[in-house]
This record gives sequence, C-alpha cells and structure tokens, in this order.
Amino acid sequence: MKRPTIADIARQAGVSKGAVSYALNGQPGVSESTRQRIIAIATEIGFNPNSAARALSGAPARAIGLALCRPARTLGMEPFFMELISGVEAELSAMSFALTLQVVANADDEIAVYRRWWGERRVDGVLICDLRVDDPRVPVLEELQLPAVVIGGPGHTGALAHVWSDDAAALVETMEYLAALGHRRIARVGGMPGLLHTETRTAAFDAVARRLGLAEASTIGADYSGEDGTRATRRLLSSPQRPTAIVYDNDVMAIAGLAVAQEMGLSVPGDLSIVAWDDSPLCRLVHPALTALGRDIPAYGSQSARTLLDLIAGAAPAGYQAETARLTPRGTTAPPR
Amino acid sequence: MKRPTIADIARQAGVSKGAVSYALNGQPGVSESTRQRIIAIATEIGFNPNSAARALSGAPARAIGLALCRPARTLGMEPFFMELISGVEAELSAMSFALTLQVVANADDEIAVYRRWWGERRVDGVLICDLRVDDPRVPVLEELQLPAVVIGGPGHTGALAHVWSDDAAALVETMEYLAALGHRRIARVGGMPGLLHTETRTAAFDAVARRLGLAEASTIGADYSGEDGTRATRRLLSSPQRPTAIVYDNDVMAIAGLAVAQEMGLSVPGDLSIVAWDDSPLCRLVHPALTALGRDIPAYGSQSARTLLDLIAGAAPAGYQAETARLTPRGTTAPPR
Repeated sequence: MKRPTIADIARQAGVSKGAVSYALNGQPGVSESTRQRIIAIATEIGFNPNSAARALSGAPARAIGLALCRPARTLGMEPFFMELISGVEAELSAMSFALTLQVVANADDEIAVYRRWWGERRVDGVLICDLRVDDPRVPVLEELQLPAVVIGGPGHTGALAHVWSDDAAALVETMEYLAALGHRRIARVGGMPGLLHTETRTAAFDAVARRLGLAEASTIGADYSGEDGTRATRRLLSSPQRPTAIVYDNDVMAIAGLAVAQEMGLSVPGDLSIVAWDDSPLCRLVHPALTALGRDIPAYGSQSARTLLDLIAGAAPAGYQAETARLTPRGTTAPPR
Repeated sequence: MKRPTIADIARQAGVSKGAVSYALNGQPGVSESTRQRIIAIATEIGFNPNSAARALSGAPARAIGLALCRPARTLGMEPFFMELISGVEAELSAMSFALTLQVVANADDEIAVYRRWWGERRVDGVLICDLRVDDPRVPVLEELQLPAVVIGGPGHTGALAHVWSDDAAALVETMEYLAALGHRRIARVGGMPGLLHTETRTAAFDAVARRLGLAEASTIGADYSGEDGTRATRRLLSSPQRPTAIVYDNDVMAIAGLAVAQEMGLSVPGDLSIVAWDDSPLCRLVHPALTALGRDIPAYGSQSARTLLDLIAGAAPAGYQAETARLTPRGTTAPPR
C-alpha cells in the first residue's frame, strides 16, 4: 500500500508521465478520451484529485502531522499535550514547518489518517504519541515509509526513530523516597493499561516494591481523567488497611485524589502522602502544592520535532534518550503519622 | 497585498499562464531564458517555489488554520483551547478538512502567518481567537480576502464572520446571584486588558455594580495564569476591607484563588465566595468544587468551524450567537458570614 505515484498511473494507462501530468492538470497535450482514462485510473488507485497537483509536484509539504487518540474532554484537561505541542511548534516555526493536528477516535482511524496524509502528501512526517505494547501503528508506518518519530519507548518502536525518557528510573526514585519517609503501604493509580509507559511503570513499581519488602503495594488502572482519579482514590481510602501514600500517573488524577482526601477528612500529608507524575503548573496551584515528578515537556516536544526534521532531511532513524523526570517534594509528602 | 497568482506572473513576464505553469513545474515548453525570467519574477512577488504547484493548481488546501497568540505555558494550562480545538476537529474531520495549528508570539507574527498561509495556499480559511478592541488583524484579513471566522464579538469584527456568546449577560446573572446571597464587597480578577471580552465583562461588571449599589466593586487585571491569579487574590485578601466574593475570568485563576484562601486560613465559602468563568472539569476536581459559569466549549468550536466551512463554500459572512454561559452553584458560594 505505497502512496500511488504518477508513474503508477502512467504504467497502467500506457502513456508517459508527462501525459498524466497534462491530463490531471487540465492542460492541453492529451486527447479527451486519454484524459478520461487517466482520471479513471487515478481515481481507482486512490490518487486524490484535490491533492493531485501537490503529490505530482513532489514538493515537500513543509508540514508534520500529529494525530491524538484521546477523548476530547481528557485532552482538554491534560496540560501534557499542549506543553508538548508548544515545544514541537517552537522547533517547527524556526524551520517554517506547519503542524497538522487531528484528534482520532481509535487506532484504526489513526492509521487511516496516516495513509491519507501520506497519500495526499499533506505531511512530510509524523509524530506518534501513546505508544502501545505491540503497537499496530508501527508496522504500518514502516511499510508506508512515512518518516515517523515515536514519542516513547524504549522497545516496541520497530525500526522507527524514537525519543524516550526513563520512566522506570523516575518511579524507583519516588518509591525509595517514600520508603525512606517510612511509608510501607504505597498504592499507585496508573494510566491506561496497554500503553507502554504504563506497563513500564507497573513493572518498575512491582519490582521496587518487592525489593523494598512492601507487601501491600498495588496499582489500580485508570484513564488519566479526574473522574477516574476520584473513583480510584475513594476505593483506596475506603479499604480497611488504607495506603499512607499514593503515586498518581498524571497531575489531573493527583489533584482529584487530593480533593477526595480533603472531602473524607484526611489530612494531607499527615494521613496521606500524594505524588503526581507530570509537574505541570497545576501542581503548584492547589493547596497544599503537590509533590511531583517533572521534566521539561516543551523541550521533549522540541527534541521530537528536531529528530523528525532530521529524518525528513535524510538522517537514519535512531533513538534519543531525553532527561529523566526529577522528584520535587512540596507540601503533599511527609512521614506517615 | 493579495495572494500572488500565476496570472500576475504571466502578466509581468509577458507570457501565457500555461508557460508559467510549464516553467515552474520544470516541464518542457518554454526556453531556458524564459524559465529563468519567470522564476525570478515568481520569487520577487513572493510566490513560494515549494508551494508553487499547490497555488498554481487552484485546488483547495482542505485545511483550516488556527494561530494562537498565547505564551506556551499558559496554553498548556487552559482547558479552554483544547476543548475548543476538539470541537473544531470534530466538525473538520467529518468534512475531511485538516487543522493547521501555529503558536505565535505576537500580533505581527500572527499576521505574517496568515499572509504566508494564504500566499502558499496552505489553508482555505482561518479561525481567529482572542479578539482585541480595534484588532489590527481584522483589516488585514479583510484585505487579503482570506475566509475568516472570528471567535468573539459582537463588535470589532469588521466585515468578518463571527461566532460569539453574551458575556455581559452571564456576568450580570452572576453578580445578581452574589448580591442576592448578601454580598456587598465583590471583586473580579479579570483577563488581559485590551481583549474585547475582557472589556465587555469589565463594562458589564461596572454597570451592574452601580445598579446594585455596590460601591466597592473593583476589577484587577491579570493574564489568566495561575501565578497572576495567586498574586491578585493575595492582594485582595490582604486589604483592610477584603471582598467577601471574588469572580475570576477563568478557571485556572479561580483554582489559584481557592488555594490562596486556604493558605491564608480563610474558609471557603464561609469567609469568601468564589466563582470561576469557564466550567471545565478542573472546577469539579478541587475541594470544595467551584461554582462556575459554563457553556459547551466543544460545541462553540464546532459551530465556528461549521461557519468557516460554509464561508469557504461561498456563504456570505454573518454573525452567530452561541449559547450564553450558565451559572452552576457548587461548594464555593454561600451567604457571607
């Protein structure tokens, strides 16, 4: 399923590439019957007439694509994506590249978008978010030969370029800090199961809990929304042996968890310590300010865009490790009472 | 400053439009010296060679542009824009249009982006946010004849299409509610001065305060960031006659204000009532949940995109009034002690 080219049409029609170009541009030089035959073939093989001129020209689109597969409401809530986009933008603007954004409902729609973008030469390359374990997008992108940078990894990126951060190391640092404060019952409210970074964090959480001898450490899966953060926190805090510390896989769920603790009359950090992943400005807005794992997300976006622009310019795909998130203790962590 | 066309190049070069097309596409049919002359003219009048084929073809770009002139960090924080974009996206996807997004530093850069997008035929139309009083973008867009829908108004939109919501009515409802609860000292932490909707709200705030006989009602200007919300709230709550109610022009500043009240030992809503504008899910995450003025922002984005697609299809520019924000009382408003 390679992008149809003018050469494919010419071969099927038994005419020269120039004749195809004349026919599709409505220029003289071909008979009306040949023109009709060429247009029929172009349509049949998925050569979009609207973008025919663009694809024919072979000129770069000077645009990169970003398809986001998240429910619209969740996207609106999470500072992560807008911060990432602002970093991507900063790099693209400097090179006069545009960003084409699309919100998609599922992985199939996302793959269809990549085929269309590449077929119509709307973009010169794409950035891939929310890498999954055995991600179905990876083999499709390899096959399309569409320049792509996966924002995630390591692992499960196939032959694609990728930019990643060591989530396992950040989680280990957090758990060791909580254990050093004296916490023995630590829970985690995780992100969507199946996402590679969720699985990486879960594996690291389980391993460090075993190593530190924390028998009751457990992860509850959630979807990054405030609603799910609320639900998971209520469940954890209603259990007979409630945790004394909870680590959340994003900032929005951590803020929701803080509100649940307040609503249930628990003191934070006296009765419950809270750590948020993604140290967005939201974490410093609430009271007490959230202890958080943070790194420079706009810089991560810029690095990803730079890697993609290099790839488009002909560089070989490679993997780049971005900085590891650092823990910033604020008002929501303390020794348990 | 209309978009340069192939006809402009042909006229200046004294050749046919077909000859220009051959020359720029690298096809036979023109002499090498004519080709060089045509390319020189095309370059001089700002005909971008990379997008020459696209502009020449006259084919629609099937993309609309959105330039956001806000600091990257603020963008990441505010659910408003991502919710708006998700609504725009829903409408565009249904019509197979793409969204081209650009973050710009100031109005001049934004205008330059519109000129480039239109010159290179990268977009078929644009959505305009953050309308200012006497906005310099309006006359430029009118002159370019670039299809544009202003998300804002009424007023200051020139001959451009616009989609607006009655902010004055929403503010009056809020003030009357607070006055009915018994509040006499009401302050407002406003958005950026110079933005039309800030000025509309300020005028409405002053008028309703006069009508209700609230002598001490005053607005502090802020920039929508949590930091500014924190600063303005500390200043208000440190004054000898501190307000018993504060209305914030966005949700992020209201959340910051709630944290300041908690940090200063004031009870919300006992000592201080708080109302947020923009009822994003953030408002329901904090404790107590915020009383807020809300409306369906994704639907607002969809209506704006629909209006732009109609315009691109040839409809006459018009103004559409979207729903007025409704007040949802939650845990942060009560009679003053």
